[in-house]
Amino acid sequence: MSPLFARMAVAGVGLIGGSLALAARAAGLVGEVVGLGRSEANLRVARDRGIVDRVATDVAAAAAGADVVVLAAPVGACAALADAFRPHVAAETILTDVGSVKASLVDALEACWPDAGRVVGAHPIAGSEAAGAAAARADLFRGRLCILTPTPRTRPEALARVRALWRGVGARTEEMDATVHDEILARVSHLPHVVAYSLMRALGDAHVAGRPVLEYAGSGLRDTTRIAGSSAELWRDIALANAPALRGAIAELRAALDHLDALIGAGAADELLAALDTARARQRALEVSR
Amino acid sequence: MSPLFARMAVAGVGLIGGSLALAARAAGLVGEVVGLGRSEANLRVARDRGIVDRVATDVAAAAAGADVVVLAAPVGACAALADAFRPHVAAETILTDVGSVKASLVDALEACWPDAGRVVGAHPIAGSEAAGAAAARADLFRGRLCILTPTPRTRPEALARVRALWRGVGARTEEMDATVHDEILARVSHLPHVVAYSLMRALGDAHVAGRPVLEYAGSGLRDTTRIAGSSAELWRDIALANAPALRGAIAELRAALDHLDALIGAGAADELLAALDTARARQRALEVSR
Repeated sequence: MSPLFARMAVAGVGLIGGSLALAARAAGLVGEVVGLGRSEANLRVARDRGIVDRVATDVAAAAAGADVVVLAAPVGACAALADAFRPHVAAETILTDVGSVKASLVDALEACWPDAGRVVGAHPIAGSEAAGAAAARADLFRGRLCILTPTPRTRPEALARVRALWRGVGARTEEMDATVHDEILARVSHLPHVVAYSLMRALGDAHVAGRPVLEYAGSGLRDTTRIAGSSAELWRDIALANAPALRGAIAELRAALDHLDALIGAGAADELLAALDTARARQRALEVSR
Repeated sequence: MSPLFARMAVAGVGLIGGSLALAARAAGLVGEVVGLGRSEANLRVARDRGIVDRVATDVAAAAAGADVVVLAAPVGACAALADAFRPHVAAETILTDVGSVKASLVDALEACWPDAGRVVGAHPIAGSEAAGAAAARADLFRGRLCILTPTPRTRPEALARVRALWRGVGARTEEMDATVHDEILARVSHLPHVVAYSLMRALGDAHVAGRPVLEYAGSGLRDTTRIAGSSAELWRDIALANAPALRGAIAELRAALDHLDALIGAGAADELLAALDTARARQRALEVSR
């Protein structure tokens, strides 16, 4: 049986791109994986770990003969990457990505690809603060959700092949409008990142009576800020690409924070208890739904 | 060799009180542990797990013959508990607590105890969102910091015995002014809790295009909000008892959040990258300092 894709070019062989390549090779979904990236050291890790069959030194070499191009670079770099691939790909080459923001990115990709109908936006919800080919794992997507954001222009057969790729590496898939994706992810992912970064900005240099406060941090602060250990470039790009939805989510969080702050200031013991208890019940439900 | 304390009364045999009792018994620091609490079911767990030698049904029985009383109840309940113990304790009985807020609580305890010099505030930084005697562990304090907050009234020998108790269960100890403790903990502990609760309040009922956003949450949101699974009563009490310091910390977080929000709104790519990268470096340093 021939594989789903004969040759896959992966631009950005980090945690997500590298894990997809590993998993696709392990599942026999691809004939060959060609890696492209900015860091030679990272590409060496990718080759040594068997994540890619070979490394391309430029876009033309990466594109040659590829029937699918996967963009797994920071969101802000993807449109320029697609533009660079464009002159070198075949008319029927599929373009997909793994970006955490979809509407503006898919628009840009459709605008520059030879056949806009062969652009399929995808976002596997499976990141972590780990980065690089060294962190890639073949089981990263098993049981996780991958959101696909086809547009009216997307060809059903291109969508079907990208869906088959994600299901083949163990993910569940769900299709939705890119703007719906962006509004949801602004809340459950982009907002927590901004909050975690904000906490570290507020606390990082804080001293009380000459003592650096972070020396007194327990596991709670570490859990709460863990995702602030994620790549600043990646999250800068995501925040800017999804700015309106993210700023709306920040405003919602600010309102919730102001409400608790006001209850604390007013000494409103019963209302504060009720407010915290509602939040606690939701968190417990979230925890068990893992 | 006689133990450090012949009889320890523990009011509130939950995660902290129960773990202290378990660890103190295991280390031979106490002759007998008597447990007192609101929940019969929890006290049964404490007795079945060997956390306490016996359970007292009222304060008088718990106080009888105790040379140390440990208050391990929610902060808001501690002053009333100390008041209830007072008529039944000996003149030389030491009173200590494990509360996350110290200044207002230690003041209240000193005001009601037979000998204010035998009141020693303590706060082991070792909580989690787990609760109850079932979650207690003898090794909970090993290598953790316990902050002691003696006042000018504290007798050196009472301080020394409470210090020996915490060191005996494996904790490091550090002494500081109660108000310094409260300003530090407002930032590294109380603030992250308020933020986590606020996130769950903002997101808990949020829907986008009919979809509950929490169904799309990844591990990042779970990490960030994990401590919102903590007891609402415990954290209501802490927030109210440390309101001025906590509200100051909330204002600092709000300023950091507003700053990132403004950079995102302005599309200030370079400044945003620099801001996130500073936060990331601090978080990484915090993570490795564990």
